[in-house]
Amino acid sequence: MFKAEAIAVDIDGTLTNRKRALNCNAVEALRKVEVPVILATGNISCFARAAAKLIGVSDIVICENGGVVRFEYDGEDIVLGDKRKCIKALEILEKHFDFELLDFEYRKSEICLRRNFDIEEAKKLVEGMGVKIVDSGFAYHITDAEVSKGRALLYVAEKLGIDPRGFAVIGDSENDVEMFKVAGFGIAVANADENLKEVADLVTPSPDGDGVVEALQFLGLIEQ
Amino acid sequence: MFKAEAIAVDIDGTLTNRKRALNCNAVEALRKVEVPVILATGNISCFARAAAKLIGVSDIVICENGGVVRFEYDGEDIVLGDKRKCIKALEILEKHFDFELLDFEYRKSEICLRRNFDIEEAKKLVEGMGVKIVDSGFAYHITDAEVSKGRALLYVAEKLGIDPRGFAVIGDSENDVEMFKVAGFGIAVANADENLKEVADLVTPSPDGDGVVEALQFLGLIEQ
Repeated sequence: MFKAEAIAVDIDGTLTNRKRALNCNAVEALRKVEVPVILATGNISCFARAAAKLIGVSDIVICENGGVVRFEYDGEDIVLGDKRKCIKALEILEKHFDFELLDFEYRKSEICLRRNFDIEEAKKLVEGMGVKIVDSGFAYHITDAEVSKGRALLYVAEKLGIDPRGFAVIGDSENDVEMFKVAGFGIAVANADENLKEVADLVTPSPDGDGVVEALQFLGLIEQ
Repeated sequence: MFKAEAIAVDIDGTLTNRKRALNCNAVEALRKVEVPVILATGNISCFARAAAKLIGVSDIVICENGGVVRFEYDGEDIVLGDKRKCIKALEILEKHFDFELLDFEYRKSEICLRRNFDIEEAKKLVEGMGVKIVDSGFAYHITDAEVSKGRALLYVAEKLGIDPRGFAVIGDSENDVEMFKVAGFGIAVANADENLKEVADLVTPSPDGDGVVEALQFLGLIEQ
């Protein structure tokens, strides 16, 4: 059986329902886990650090789809992505679409947009610009092509002195794929994107938070 | 019996334990409440809006001890306090104490400091400067004397068209006193500050989140 030295867990759609409210069973289960629990989200660091505190797990968070990492609640954001590339791509896309920017002032490495335009068309328009457009299931993100939750997990693992293959990761969406590739064991919750299920080692029977509880049981991190 | 048209609830020490992790019983109970539930915290708006989303209550939040209010998750912060007054007071205090500033870049109406200096001494030093120094139990706050959670509750109540006396409020600390004075019914959790218990209509038998559940039962907002 895979023995996890640490776990990384996505928030929206994994620990939360579609309305983005926490699944309390998952919260209670995560508090029983004795290895470090790291949240990994497409959301901003200010949201992620609040979530870590309120859920009651470690203060280490991967945010903005890997563009920002943070090790302490009152520490500094470490910015791994180049927002300027994303702004250049936005300038091109603005000629074709009307956008609603989300959290623009708080995002340090990427741009987040309401999911109200044709993402496939947008991807074609920014080809070769060093960015990618990622669907978190809750928003579209124009992100530096060099960053991903996977790259950020490698960064965090190195800082913690943990082999990235020692991580078990749990997620639901496309932006979790790279993290699944670098971790030792990847678990997709039942509601996960098909692309993520393809690279997962296990798909839980239940969706979102209840799936997280099943994942932690499967990993032997909590009792059945 | 008091019939609440809306409730306002503090976060730290009320919905959370001393480690600032949510009490899941309280979270589940708040989701059953059918009147608007408004979070009222000394924390920044970015933390408060995350908490509201994760807990699963209304997006309406009172933040920074009343210095900021917000009505929608993707809306704007409405700033009710003058941070410049607080900065002037800080400049005086810095001659006497070594401070650790918390969330300085995110705070829009006040200054938040680690609880590692003599607050009574500090209060004397800034007398007549139009600010107050408030202890949330988790940090000290230099706040515009014109703002309080109570004033912010009046602002929110007016916008919602609810009589402030129709609010029941639940809290644990000194920064909740003004809110208790303007609301129709104030409930202090068992771990509350003595100053708050003095102005409360009810003190719950249990501390923090379990006290919130008792408060909601007492108000008839959830089943026994």
